[in-house]
Amino acid sequence: MKKLLMILICVVFIAGVIGSAYAQFAKPEYAVKYRKAVMFLIAQHFGRMGAMVKGKIPYNQEVFTKNAMLVETLSRLSWEAMMVPETDTGDTTLNASAFAQQAKFKEMAQTFETQATKLASTAESGDFSAIKTQFGQVGKSCKACHTQFRTK
Amino acid sequence: MKKLLMILICVVFIAGVIGSAYAQFAKPEYAVKYRKAVMFLIAQHFGRMGAMVKGKIPYNQEVFTKNAMLVETLSRLSWEAMMVPETDTGDTTLNASAFAQQAKFKEMAQTFETQATKLASTAESGDFSAIKTQFGQVGKSCKACHTQFRTK
Repeated sequence: MKKLLMILICVVFIAGVIGSAYAQFAKPEYAVKYRKAVMFLIAQHFGRMGAMVKGKIPYNQEVFTKNAMLVETLSRLSWEAMMVPETDTGDTTLNASAFAQQAKFKEMAQTFETQATKLASTAESGDFSAIKTQFGQVGKSCKACHTQFRTK
Repeated sequence: MKKLLMILICVVFIAGVIGSAYAQFAKPEYAVKYRKAVMFLIAQHFGRMGAMVKGKIPYNQEVFTKNAMLVETLSRLSWEAMMVPETDTGDTTLNASAFAQQAKFKEMAQTFETQATKLASTAESGDFSAIKTQFGQVGKSCKACHTQFRTK
């Protein structure tokens, strides 16, 4: 009986968490637009750091750190918009397999968040060699998830 | 002669600042996409706070503050993408008059940033009455600029 009650509490809790995340979007297409907006901004600011890492523009610690902090903030935003029902078709590059493999998908999103957070703190240290290495780790986490869950 | 030198230094400095902002975007359409992404995210997170202010969903200080801090961060992003040449026509709601009245436009953008920053600090205080008032101030700054510089 206690077990049943515990299961019931868990179900209600999980439904509440999922519900509150989904309820953030008035329509499924807003969730798609939201995650696309977040991903575009991440790509833009990641690209600005990439230009410094690759020596295309001079390294500027203040600018790099601002970009890294912004990517850290943005890395936490998109997950809630990903698993909204009715958003796996149409104008999206999210592979429908992500819905069937939510645990794997969430794990990869979490890795990206962790690496982006590390990049922001590494950027503050100003150690350009460490920054380059950590920038690579972020890029790796992007690529891993895109390879598996993004359609071209 | 000194005056001429000073003017020359200023021109080079301003050109550098403007140039570096414009250079952030590989193509003019990326600047449009960028500012639209920022504006969409601001609208989403402002709307979430609005739902609490209007009593449509229960007030939650932690959630409200997160949204307010995010809007503060986002409020600082869009300006650089606004005045990029060749972005006043096509798929944009930015009124071309903004280019002719840059000082006015910038002033209004600055007011929005200031009000959004105040909302984030007010949110942290947890004083719901003050939060509602400051939320209204942010909304007012949005509307003032949209009325003048956004086409429908």
